[in-house]
Order: sequence, then structure tokens, then C-alpha cells
Amino acid sequence: MRKIGVVTSGGDAPGMNAAIRAIVRTAIPKKLEVLGFKRGFAGLLNNDVKPLGLRTVGGIIHLGGTILRTERCPKFATEEGIERASEVLKSNKVDALIVIGGDGSFKGALKLHEASGIQVIGIPATIDNDVVGTETTIGFDTAVNTAIQAIDRIRDTAMSHGRVFVVEVMGRKRGFLALEVGLTAGAEVILVPEIKRDIDSVCETLIRSRKKEKEYSIVVVAEGFGNSTSLVKEIAEKTGFEIRLTILGHIQRGGSPTARSRLIASLFSSYAVEKILESDESGVVGLQNGKVIFNSLEFVNKEYKPLNTELLQLAEDLAI
Amino acid sequence: MRKIGVVTSGGDAPGMNAAIRAIVRTAIPKKLEVLGFKRGFAGLLNNDVKPLGLRTVGGIIHLGGTILRTERCPKFATEEGIERASEVLKSNKVDALIVIGGDGSFKGALKLHEASGIQVIGIPATIDNDVVGTETTIGFDTAVNTAIQAIDRIRDTAMSHGRVFVVEVMGRKRGFLALEVGLTAGAEVILVPEIKRDIDSVCETLIRSRKKEKEYSIVVVAEGFGNSTSLVKEIAEKTGFEIRLTILGHIQRGGSPTARSRLIASLFSSYAVEKILESDESGVVGLQNGKVIFNSLEFVNKEYKPLNTELLQLAEDLAI
Amino acid sequence: MRKIGVVTSGGDAPGMNAAIRAIVRTAIPKKLEVLGFKRGFAGLLNNDVKPLGLRTVGGIIHLGGTILRTERCPKFATEEGIERASEVLKSNKVDALIVIGGDGSFKGALKLHEASGIQVIGIPATIDNDVVGTETTIGFDTAVNTAIQAIDRIRDTAMSHGRVFVVEVMGRKRGFLALEVGLTAGAEVILVPEIKRDIDSVCETLIRSRKKEKEYSIVVVAEGFGNSTSLVKEIAEKTGFEIRLTILGHIQRGGSPTARSRLIASLFSSYAVEKILESDESGVVGLQNGKVIFNSLEFVNKEYKPLNTELLQLAEDLAI
Amino acid sequence: MRKIGVVTSGGDAPGMNAAIRAIVRTAIPKKLEVLGFKRGFAGLLNNDVKPLGLRTVGGIIHLGGTILRTERCPKFATEEGIERASEVLKSNKVDALIVIGGDGSFKGALKLHEASGIQVIGIPATIDNDVVGTETTIGFDTAVNTAIQAIDRIRDTAMSHGRVFVVEVMGRKRGFLALEVGLTAGAEVILVPEIKRDIDSVCETLIRSRKKEKEYSIVVVAEGFGNSTSLVKEIAEKTGFEIRLTILGHIQRGGSPTARSRLIASLFSSYAVEKILESDESGVVGLQNGKVIFNSLEFVNKEYKPLNTELLQLAEDLAI
Repeated sequence: MRKIGVVTSGGDAPGMNAAIRAIVRTAIPKKLEVLGFKRGFAGLLNNDVKPLGLRTVGGIIHLGGTILRTERCPKFATEEGIERASEVLKSNKVDALIVIGGDGSFKGALKLHEASGIQVIGIPATIDNDVVGTETTIGFDTAVNTAIQAIDRIRDTAMSHGRVFVVEVMGRKRGFLALEVGLTAGAEVILVPEIKRDIDSVCETLIRSRKKEKEYSIVVVAEGFGNSTSLVKEIAEKTGFEIRLTILGHIQRGGSPTARSRLIASLFSSYAVEKILESDESGVVGLQNGKVIFNSLEFVNKEYKPLNTELLQLAEDLAI
Repeated sequence: MRKIGVVTSGGDAPGMNAAIRAIVRTAIPKKLEVLGFKRGFAGLLNNDVKPLGLRTVGGIIHLGGTILRTERCPKFATEEGIERASEVLKSNKVDALIVIGGDGSFKGALKLHEASGIQVIGIPATIDNDVVGTETTIGFDTAVNTAIQAIDRIRDTAMSHGRVFVVEVMGRKRGFLALEVGLTAGAEVILVPEIKRDIDSVCETLIRSRKKEKEYSIVVVAEGFGNSTSLVKEIAEKTGFEIRLTILGHIQRGGSPTARSRLIASLFSSYAVEKILESDESGVVGLQNGKVIFNSLEFVNKEYKPLNTELLQLAEDLAI
Repeated sequence: MRKIGVVTSGGDAPGMNAAIRAIVRTAIPKKLEVLGFKRGFAGLLNNDVKPLGLRTVGGIIHLGGTILRTERCPKFATEEGIERASEVLKSNKVDALIVIGGDGSFKGALKLHEASGIQVIGIPATIDNDVVGTETTIGFDTAVNTAIQAIDRIRDTAMSHGRVFVVEVMGRKRGFLALEVGLTAGAEVILVPEIKRDIDSVCETLIRSRKKEKEYSIVVVAEGFGNSTSLVKEIAEKTGFEIRLTILGHIQRGGSPTARSRLIASLFSSYAVEKILESDESGVVGLQNGKVIFNSLEFVNKEYKPLNTELLQLAEDLAI
Repeated sequence: MRKIGVVTSGGDAPGMNAAIRAIVRTAIPKKLEVLGFKRGFAGLLNNDVKPLGLRTVGGIIHLGGTILRTERCPKFATEEGIERASEVLKSNKVDALIVIGGDGSFKGALKLHEASGIQVIGIPATIDNDVVGTETTIGFDTAVNTAIQAIDRIRDTAMSHGRVFVVEVMGRKRGFLALEVGLTAGAEVILVPEIKRDIDSVCETLIRSRKKEKEYSIVVVAEGFGNSTSLVKEIAEKTGFEIRLTILGHIQRGGSPTARSRLIASLFSSYAVEKILESDESGVVGLQNGKVIFNSLEFVNKEYKPLNTELLQLAEDLAI
């Protein structure tokens, strides 16, 4: 019998539990033993491990967060950390490690694979959708829906007061979340870290909207675009409009995963287990053209995922 | 200036309003005039028409149902109906008609196109996802999420009482909804109209689940599988378990569209308008391999959309 | 040190877990030991018991259902059952038993108290709100909100199709849920078991609504009013309207408790523990004029809780 | 025939539309004409008025915000403003004005009544619940539920990371919202503007929680308690814990009203209309001991509404 390890790493994302469930439920019938390392790489370094059985993962498909816990672990990135992790995996006789996490976690995954020779497979789970080589990640669809539901509430107040609302969504470096939230919430303006945009042109759009008898406007801004508080102040000064800022914050991270996040989690995870059964190749699972595919760890760590600027254009066209 | 007509037809689906909005907002800047026919084909026959402007479609992206209303219209299917519809479209100088609806509506769309020569473009919007040539339809993702949220509530009672629950979801002829709901709700058994399944084997699965210390079980059944009340009775008799039936019914049809339903609506609709601008080809918009594509009306009316049996197998594997 | 037992009984209701938490958290600091009997009176008869500690009840305030499980137990109502329960309680050295449940459970509670002499305190938890001597019960507010959210979805379809929808809510004998749901969902007609109403007069109301340019109507009916399927058929025949029936069913029972259900649970439970500390009186906690009060078991088992007919009148007046 | 005016004033609150509906629907059958003034007192000063009919208020009971709009209006508070408002009301032949709003709006209501002699009736609608003489206000229950649902999402992340989360809820001067949110979300610490609390004692509670093996903690703080960012920084420094701040902001204000907010709106509004029919007394509607009552405008403007400190104690006791 072969053994696989599972770890959830980085920020939690809704659907991580559905992924853990799918790994365990597809692995065990194939005679793989599954060990769960708790609290991300931090737990891996401390050999904080427990076996995962078929019933351990029962009744969790709909739960947000991760039953394995997660933690940021700066020590892991060090040479010493990687070495310690290799030892722990080997002492537990782990043949392959599945890392459920985001961009940062896959950096560690590559180093660990290179240092230990152990097969390491990444499953992209992050609300930021910033993993290259995949169209979507576990948790992204949930976060988008959480954000637009929040904006639907804010819309009531925006309409009632005839106000402009600026809504800051997560995304320190990338604007995937802001873009999809902005498009589906019907925002007048979407501001992303990837594209510099002049505040004057934002003001013009808002003034033009007002002239077209739009009684309220919504601006969606990724946290990485700049300082939202200053942004709001500047727009208010330049337009004379009453503007309110809402920072959605951590509510975007939690909650029961949507159907799509659960589905993606199930597809990615069963694919990862199959991969382990049929080869010792390391890599990261992804979705391309609607199909589950496999990218190398090197590719995922090196390449840059472009933002869909056509979608951004569409969003602006639709907010006319 | 050219004129396009828009009609929502058949059962309503969440995202129809987002589609209407996207049609109007992409058409008007391209100098197309947009007329909305109310109450589906019934309103078309009665020339129940109003112009749709940029502001008419403001503040509706998040609303369920359809501002154009919809109605079943048996008369439309007749030769006389089709002729009358052609006249109405011509008297309104409509160059192209966009039909937002499902399978049944596209039958009428083809006939109307053949009889009138007018360009007719279908946009698939149905919670059933039963349109061939597209991976998804407007409203499907919303209905799946509504259903799994309902099942998450039922799970509380199932767990507390240690019961088996049978949940009937919509789908008179096809099991797409049941399949995706069952997979993402973690159902033990999924019953669809396309696949005959012996009740004895269902009972065996449930008994096996109980033996594996699963304290409750959920069976998802499409309404077209058979009579759910008889099904529950038969399972109860054969297993001796306490079983409850919940028929989700019309709550699956309404509600604010999910992000994905709004996104698909925006993509399909802007594509339909572009198609009208660049050619006079009739057809049905769809999503294939994650990309928006175009199928002929003949194809959509003739071909059969297969159920993804691998997904069904995965669902069962994961419910072990 | 004294010992108290806790049992959740009858149908589960959202907020039962908040009640268990509040009992344990107020009892233990007062040096009371708390034993939880599982699966309602069935578990009590089987001595299925576990101690409840401060951490056992952590992270459950927001969960639907009951961590103690519940089960219908016909055997309990027998003389033999009551005797067995007395023995189990005494063998566990339980000084007082808290029964979290509904009307039926308090019948058993009285018998048990009479037979054993043990202090028994009832905490009303049922989505039916059919316990006399209290204005509300744990779970009622949640069920009302679940039902009106479902009706808000149905409203989308009702509006889009211009249809009449009949929505059946729980309530085999009493109409408290139907009344509050109907009033707050803006239903045109509310049908409850307590008040006979002629189908002809229902039809008149619906026809009058249609004439007043109401484009759709919603009828809320308690399951105990009669056979809803026949009702719908009869109304359809007499009015000629297209009518749809939705039976909300078990989704009303589950889900995360609302703030009010959690608050009532906390107030009732802390009061119950105080009562145990200060006297050996048995009885049922309740809310009267917005204050927590205490009724005798005899009163709760004998008296009839009237329906607020003024509220019913108001609901009809508002649906004009 | 007599005429009444209606205005929604101050910040919007969920249930304002249900109140407008109930006023119109109870007034018109009693031969009262109803005029709606738009955009709060600002619209009143500008004679921005429209008649409200039975159908105008159809299909709005479930909508957040206010169809009459609202706006802050500093000019209204001036002598000149009050005089202008009197003129507008008299020129419209308004016999009584219903003001749906909060604390601040009732200041204006009293002045207006004193200056014009017109009957003015206040209906408390504010998510802050800071109106004296009433146990609850329209919108309060909705805001509490919105906040606890947000916290339930945050809990997923708090649990997964084993973190302390500080959640800031609305309430610049008063802590009613923070208190009820904190109690029903199971917060370890609740900080309100009315009660000074030493940061050291907060830290002690959090450290004690950690020692009791509570893996995460939630602190609910009203915005008026102090600067939340500084608070978080100070706690982090003193405890060494990883702490995150989430400011819920405007999502608390919007959304579909809960059943209770709709019910309170219906009860308050029908009572207000009855009051107008039977007397020319001015005052503010309220709920006391679960019954609808009437307070004088003077009382509501003069008295101070105490915070329920017993409830605060209970919340802390339950978070042990």
C-alpha cells in the first residue's frame, strides 16, 4: 500500500473541505492510505499528522474553511524548513503530497519536490484565482457570489440615497475577483491592480452616469489598486458627489462553497489521485477550455496569468 | 437603423434579466433599436411590444424572473401562429429576433425563421440545461445552488433524526440538474430519467451506507425518473428505514441569479448582438470548451444532448 | 454537586443547539454537572448518555438541527416507558431534566415528573409555535424567515408568468406559521386549520385581486387546512386561472437559526438553569409580554393557545 | 376626505417599504388620501410629491431600501426649513404627516409639529434601535441577522486559522446592534460606546479563552467604541495573537427585510393610521412589553434609552 499526504496551505478558500473529501474518497478504494497534515506547512514541519478515513470526511462537503486548518509559515520557505519537511514526509513514508492552496503554496511545493524527490501535486484553491494555467480555482466562484450578494444589499442603500458606493474587494496583486464581481454586479467602474487608471477618467465616467439619469453608481476596486480611502476622498472632491466606501474584507473568504466550487474541488481532487496512481509526475491540476488538465510545477511558478481585458471592456460596455 | 426584437419564452430562468440588459446595452450603442415583446410568443402574437432603452434595463441585473414576462403559448406552434408572428415582426420592421428561452422555444424559433426568413437567434436560458450544443444555460447554475442550499437545510434534520431524505428536483425529461445537485450536495444516490435504475439496488446502497456508519443519507431524484411518492414508499418498505420526501418545486426557478448565470447571460447576449451586426445567420448561442460559440437552429432542434455519465460515476464514487 | 440532564425531543428546530450551549455554559459555572441524553426520549430509555462540557458546546450556536439528535419514541408514552426513564435518570443521579422540544414532548415531561418526582423543565422549541403560554418558541422565527425567502423566489416566477401560486407551509394542527408567513410574505389569502374557509370565497378574493390589476397572487396554506392538491385543483377549476402548488416541506425545519431564535434560546435556557438553582419547581419556560416567564406543566398540557385573529385580519387588509 | 403625507427620513432601513405599503393599504380603504414626499425632508422642502395608490405599493414588501428615497437634509433643522415644510404641507392640504425614520428625524418631527400645528406621527425605522420608548425598530432585526450571517462566514476563516477576529458593526453612539449581534454570534467580547472597557481586560479575556482551548475568538465592537484599527493593533501587541479586523459597513443597512422587520413595519404603520383616524395627537409609535404603544414626541426627544446590561452580562457568561 502507498501513502499520500494532504495539506491545506495559505489563506483558506471555500471548497477546501470538498477537496479533502474527494481525495480521501477516491484514494482509499484504490488502496492508498491518506495522512492529513494540520495547519498547513507549519503542521507539516511539526509532524502534526492524522490519518484521514472515509468517515472523517463525511458531512463536510458544504462547510467553508478547512478541517485540516491552515497557517502562514515563513519558516517553510527556508532551506532548513524544506529539509525538515522532507524528513517528516519520509518518516511518515509518504509517497506523494497533495498541496491544496494558492500561488504562494506552490512555490513551496516546487522546492519541496526538488529537495525531496517526493511527488508533489498542487490543487489550486484560492479566492484570488491567481494561479496560472487554470481558468478557475476552488473558492473563486464562492467569493464572487459572496461579494455580489453584499453589493446587492449595498445597492438598496445606494438607490435609496442616490449615492456612489465604492466597494473594495480582495486582491492585493491581481484583479480577477474585482473584474468578475464588477461585471456581474453591474458596476460602473472596475479598478484592478494590473491596469493604471486615471482618477479623472473615473470621475468623468461617474459624472456621465449621473447625467444619463443613473441615480446611483457602484465602483468595484481591488485592494491592490491603491489606497481606497484616498481614492474615495479624491473622487468626492473632484465630483462633489456623496460617496461611501465599503471594504468587504474577510466575509469574502468564508461561507459554504457554491456548487461550482464544490464541483471544481471534486474534479481537481479525483484527478490528482488518478495522477498519483498512474505516474510519479509532479505538477498542478487546472481547468483549461473547460477540461481538467495538468501543468508542471515549474510552469505554474514561472508564468504570468493574464487578466481578461476583453471581459473588462464588456463590463464597461454593459454599464453604459 | 436596424431593429431587433427580444422575447423571453417558456419557463422563466434566473439571469433572463441580465440577458435583456446585455442585449440592450450592446445593441443601442451600435445603432440598433430594440423592441421587447412581452409575455413570450403570446405577446408576440398580440403585438404586445415596447421599446427597450438603456435606462429601461437599469437596476435589473440582479433580479430573478423576467421583466418582459413569459407565458406558455400552444397557439404559437400552429401554422397560423407562426404566420401571425411573422406579420407582427414585419409590421414592426424587426430585422432580427432574439429568443431567450429553452429547448421548446427553439423549436418555435426555427419554424419562425423558416416561415418568415427573419434572422432568429436563440439564447439558451433554462434551469434544466437541456439545450444541445452548449455546456451550460442561463439559470442553470442558480438553480443548482438554490437546490443545494435547500439540501443543506434538510441535512440538519437528516443528521438530527438519522434519516434518509429523498429530494426531488426539477427535470421532467433530463437529469442535468439532478446530477449536478446530487454531486455537489454529496448525495448517496442520484436518479435521473436517462438511466433506469432498479429500486433494489438503490436500497442496497442505502443499507450499505447505514452499515458503514453513515448516519443519514440523501437521495436526489429528477421528477422525470418516476413517481417520487411511490419511490419513497417502496424504499421504506424494502429497507425498513424512516424516509422523508421533499419536492423542491418552484423555489428552484426563482431568486437572484448567481454570478455565473449573470456572466453567461452577459457573454451570450453580447455575442448574439455581434452576430446580428456581422451576418444574417440564424442560430443558437452556446458554450463549448469554455468558449462562446454558435450552433445552427437545425442542429439544436435535431441533436440529443448526452448526460455526462462519468460525472454520475464520480458522484457515486465520492459518496462511498 | 447537582446533576442535570438535557434532552432534545420531537422534531428538530433551529436554535436547539444554541439552547444546549446556553444550558451548559450557565450550569457548569454554578457547579451543576450536565448530562446529555441522545436521540430524544429514545436515548433516555436506552441510557444513551454523555457528559456535556464547556467545549462540547463550542462552535454550535449557529448550527441547525441538534447535536444531541432527536427521535420520535412512541414507547416513551407508555407506563413502562415512563418507569424506565425514571430509573435511568435516577441511576444517573439526575436531579433535574430539561426537555427541549414541542407540545408533544411536554406531555411526556409531565408524566415523567409525576411518576418520578424529578424536576422537569420544558423549553419550547418547535417551528410550529404551538406551545401555550408563550408568544414564541425556539425555531419559529427561523422557519418563518426560511418560508418567506422561499416565497420571495417563487414571487419571481409568479410575477413573470402572471400566475397564482399556492404555497403549503408546515402546521398539521395549527396555523401560527402560516399566519406569520402569509402576513410577512404579503399573501392574498391565508388558510389555517383553525378557521374553516369556503373555497368560493377564496376564489372571489383571487378574482377580485386580478380585477384590481394584481398580476399575480400568493396563497399561503397550512398543511392541516386540507388536501392542498385538491384545493389547487378546485380553485383552478372555479377561477380558470393557471395555478401552481409548492409544498415547502422539510426545508422549513433546518438551516442556521436566526438571531431571534438564538436569542430566545439563550434567554429560555439561562432562565431554566436559574430555576433549577433556586427551586425544585417543574414547568415550562415561555415569553409573555416580551418577558421570560414560567408556566406549570399542567397549564401547558391543558390549555389551548388561541390564534391571533386580529393579525389574520390585518394580513388580509394589507393584501387589498 | 382627509390627506396624509408620508416621508422616509435619515438612513434607510430594511422594512421601510413594508411600512409605506401598510400605511397606504390601511389608509385608502378608510378614505384617506396618501401623498408620498420623496428624498426625505429634502423632498418635502422642494414639494417633491406624488400620490401613493394601492398598486404603487404592490410587490415591495420584500425590498430593502425605500421607494420614497431618503436624504440627509441639514437645512430642514433651521427655522427657515421648518417654515418652508409647513407651507408645503399646508399647500398640499396635508392633515397629518407620518415620518418613518430614526432618532434624528423625530427631532425635526417635533419642531415641525410645534411650528405648524399639523399632526405628526413618527414610526421608528433604523438599524440602530436607538429610539427611546420602543423595544425594537423597523430594520433592526434585519441588520442583526445580516451581521451574524457575515460573522458566520468569518468564523470559517477564524476556525481554519485559529485567529482572533474583531468585527466592527454600526453604532456611532449606541451599542444595541453590537450587543445583540455579539450575543447571537457567540462573541467572546462585546464592546459598546456606553460602557468604557479597559483594553487590558479585553486582552485577559482573549488570553483566558485561548488557555481554555478555544481555538478562535470573535470580538464585536460598535463603531462608536473607539478607533477599531488602533484597538486591533493594541490587542495584537499586548497578546501577541494574530488578529484581523473586518468592518461590516453598509452591507448591514440593505437587504430584504426579515419577517420580524416586515411584521413590525405592518403593525406600527397600521397603528399610525388608526391613530390619525381617531385623534389628532402627535407622537411616536413603539413596542413595549410586546404590544404596540404610543409615546409623545417630547418623550422620545427627551429621554435616554438604556442599554440592557443584563443581556451584556448574559452574552459574556455564555462565551465562557
